[in-house]
Amino acid sequence: MDVRRATPDDAELIGELLHAFNTEFDEPTPSATQMAARVRELLPLDTVVLLSGDLGLAVIRFQPSLWSRNDEAYLAELYVRPEHRGAGIGRALLTAVLDHARGRGADYIHLGTTEDDVAARHLYERMGFRRTEGDDGPLMFVYEREL
Amino acid sequence: MDVRRATPDDAELIGELLHAFNTEFDEPTPSATQMAARVRELLPLDTVVLLSGDLGLAVIRFQPSLWSRNDEAYLAELYVRPEHRGAGIGRALLTAVLDHARGRGADYIHLGTTEDDVAARHLYERMGFRRTEGDDGPLMFVYEREL
Repeated sequence: MDVRRATPDDAELIGELLHAFNTEFDEPTPSATQMAARVRELLPLDTVVLLSGDLGLAVIRFQPSLWSRNDEAYLAELYVRPEHRGAGIGRALLTAVLDHARGRGADYIHLGTTEDDVAARHLYERMGFRRTEGDDGPLMFVYEREL
Repeated sequence: MDVRRATPDDAELIGELLHAFNTEFDEPTPSATQMAARVRELLPLDTVVLLSGDLGLAVIRFQPSLWSRNDEAYLAELYVRPEHRGAGIGRALLTAVLDHARGRGADYIHLGTTEDDVAARHLYERMGFRRTEGDDGPLMFVYEREL
């Protein structure tokens, strides 16, 4: 299960995968070409994309942590094409995300996901993520709004 | 209820407020002086702090959005000293956060909070935040782990 870090040459593929992601979940989405252009802007900035062939991707955003002298990571997107799910690609991508973030010196990673995305939630939990504050603390919710 | 944008001269106050925040909730925390030094590093980067006197603060992190050509905002911290809660300071800070983020051209804001922080959750909901995907969609959870 080969996972590699994307370069700007992968922008078209990344744009296509992100467009497929949003289309699958009926979210409004820029076109694949628009997404590719945005990805080309973000890759030199705070964004790392990991790819498993052309079957799936992880998008990580990095920023300096407020609470330590290190970076922290935000897993913005994790997507595997529907016909290739259940084959370990998501797990390989997430393993590579953790390795990459650690290698960069990040000390913390967070993400948001939905209650109904049971497969992803099980994967996160198997990989050591918690949705509670501490081991037995209260649940943590994402709140969001448009501006 | 005057809210103003912090400058590097406010770093000591911000460090003290963030230290008080973590101490109140029994979280491990760097010292107020260490926090102030980190705040001085972050203010010229992606971070905006809003202050209501010396009674409360909001910490906002900005990054370019993946899904649009605009920025998005992450409300990293919102804190009011315990003896001054219930007086509208949190609401004034959050109103200023939304105004500042809009003024900067951000089109989206998100945050994480816990199930038991009922006062904050009511404030977010009154101010137009949702913890569901869409109006009646599934709940959105934060997942996190140390690295």
